[in-house]
Amino acid sequence: MSKILVFGHQNPDTDAIGAAIAFSHLQNELGKTTEAVALGTPSEETQYALDHFGLTAPRVVEAAGAGTDVMLVDHNEFQQSISDIAEVNVLSVVDHHRIANFETANPLYYRAEPVGCTSTIVLKMFKESGVTIPKAIAGMMVSAIISDTLLFKSPTCTDEDVRAAKELATLAEIDLDVYGLEMLKAGTKLSDKSAEVLLDLDAKSFPMADKNVRIAQINTVDLSEVMDRQAELEAAMAETSTANGYDLFILVVTNILDSDSELLVFGEPKEKVEEAFATKLVNNRALLKGVVSRKKQVVPQLTEAFA
Amino acid sequence: MSKILVFGHQNPDTDAIGAAIAFSHLQNELGKTTEAVALGTPSEETQYALDHFGLTAPRVVEAAGAGTDVMLVDHNEFQQSISDIAEVNVLSVVDHHRIANFETANPLYYRAEPVGCTSTIVLKMFKESGVTIPKAIAGMMVSAIISDTLLFKSPTCTDEDVRAAKELATLAEIDLDVYGLEMLKAGTKLSDKSAEVLLDLDAKSFPMADKNVRIAQINTVDLSEVMDRQAELEAAMAETSTANGYDLFILVVTNILDSDSELLVFGEPKEKVEEAFATKLVNNRALLKGVVSRKKQVVPQLTEAFA
Repeated sequence: MSKILVFGHQNPDTDAIGAAIAFSHLQNELGKTTEAVALGTPSEETQYALDHFGLTAPRVVEAAGAGTDVMLVDHNEFQQSISDIAEVNVLSVVDHHRIANFETANPLYYRAEPVGCTSTIVLKMFKESGVTIPKAIAGMMVSAIISDTLLFKSPTCTDEDVRAAKELATLAEIDLDVYGLEMLKAGTKLSDKSAEVLLDLDAKSFPMADKNVRIAQINTVDLSEVMDRQAELEAAMAETSTANGYDLFILVVTNILDSDSELLVFGEPKEKVEEAFATKLVNNRALLKGVVSRKKQVVPQLTEAFA
Repeated sequence: MSKILVFGHQNPDTDAIGAAIAFSHLQNELGKTTEAVALGTPSEETQYALDHFGLTAPRVVEAAGAGTDVMLVDHNEFQQSISDIAEVNVLSVVDHHRIANFETANPLYYRAEPVGCTSTIVLKMFKESGVTIPKAIAGMMVSAIISDTLLFKSPTCTDEDVRAAKELATLAEIDLDVYGLEMLKAGTKLSDKSAEVLLDLDAKSFPMADKNVRIAQINTVDLSEVMDRQAELEAAMAETSTANGYDLFILVVTNILDSDSELLVFGEPKEKVEEAFATKLVNNRALLKGVVSRKKQVVPQLTEAFA
């Protein structure tokens, strides 16, 4: 019997890879034969975590093969999954997102909870099964929680995520604050990346009214390091907007140290941005105190302004 | 704050109503304010269980109202749910079916497992939460498992369902075999029902190749009681097939005592039925030994024959 493939979403983040490694281990301990794989290479942040805990990156797969048994973590929507998701056999899903564009032919295990990180749910499943979590796997799980919650500063973070991270940090033998900040910083080496790459690291499109709004986010420990490149970024925003038909391009640059974000805005209608955040753009920029979550603090406010 | 509505699927069976009552109780014990409701009136089988444990049938609702918080049990597909399902806010789902035609705007709790009955999963959730199950609620839960698994004879039944039923039977203070058979028999009072009603008690349509195949199932303790009405049933099958465009109508009459089923077939192509079950129709009828599950022992075999 071939191995069951366990994987997270495309453009994998630390939770997509960490939860796949952890859930695969749990399933193997419970008697299944699974392999954690990934739909892309690890980010610098995720690689930092893998290196710290002495693990190698999961094998990258493009397609599973029709009829293959798979287990999904940290996603369910088909467009975020493996290329041949409609032809495989989904045995189980563990996730913390909404459910959409997902269906199966057969009954399956599905475990979703509205918490900040998939690894928080996987920890619960380890405990329900009475399976011990090895140090390196606890390390990847706590790294995933740190990543998804920006070290507990994101409004998506729940009390359960904090409790899970503390428990896992003990197993992983790390100091949460020291390790957490080092790992997040590892994902903020921006100076060696072109403006085009920065704008595409973590970007999503949203239709709002009759406008095509692109919202990209990058994490940094030094806002000025990014904003010193404003001219270069604006030129790249103009180019990609023309090429892809974006009306409005919003770059959210988030300082993970003090949990503020600065916006850099290109295109129109800019007044909707000012309305959404009750602010005034100066030189196409605005500082938003306490804003770190695109999902909870940017998209809903913009959607409302366009409504 | 208005109550969160908890309900199972349309044309509710004992699991749809039993799991709703049980899950609503669990949520209330955990601090939520919920009400178990139903998308239809109880069957005679379900009413037997409600009466036995001194419970009243849940209030029947047609629509929840836009924006209402709801929790689904024993289903997820929108076409099986409340009429305004697309406008309500689904907080959680507990189910044992495939996932299809289901989506949410927000993250939610979703708990699905490939077992024989939703109430088996609800029992697990009671235990994980450390909440005590009152006798009457344990009674509805064990009734649901008896119903969904035909007293453990259905191939959909898992070891976990059997263990759950035994545990719940103790809490409900019933003898599983004695109570179980009485409850199933309560759902088999067929003599006072017209042929039209019998054909619609539990019927589903399936497109197969270019044919519209209707498969109805009824439970009995006496096959001959039903088959003595063959002429009346065939006349009703002819009428409903013309009215609804069914090419082939298969009535599966299941003897819950010895776990056999007799088919009564109307329409064409009848040879596909013979091929599917490696049998010969005599007087439009065939006895299938050991067949009790439409989902596992009838639909896949017919689908294969039509392929």
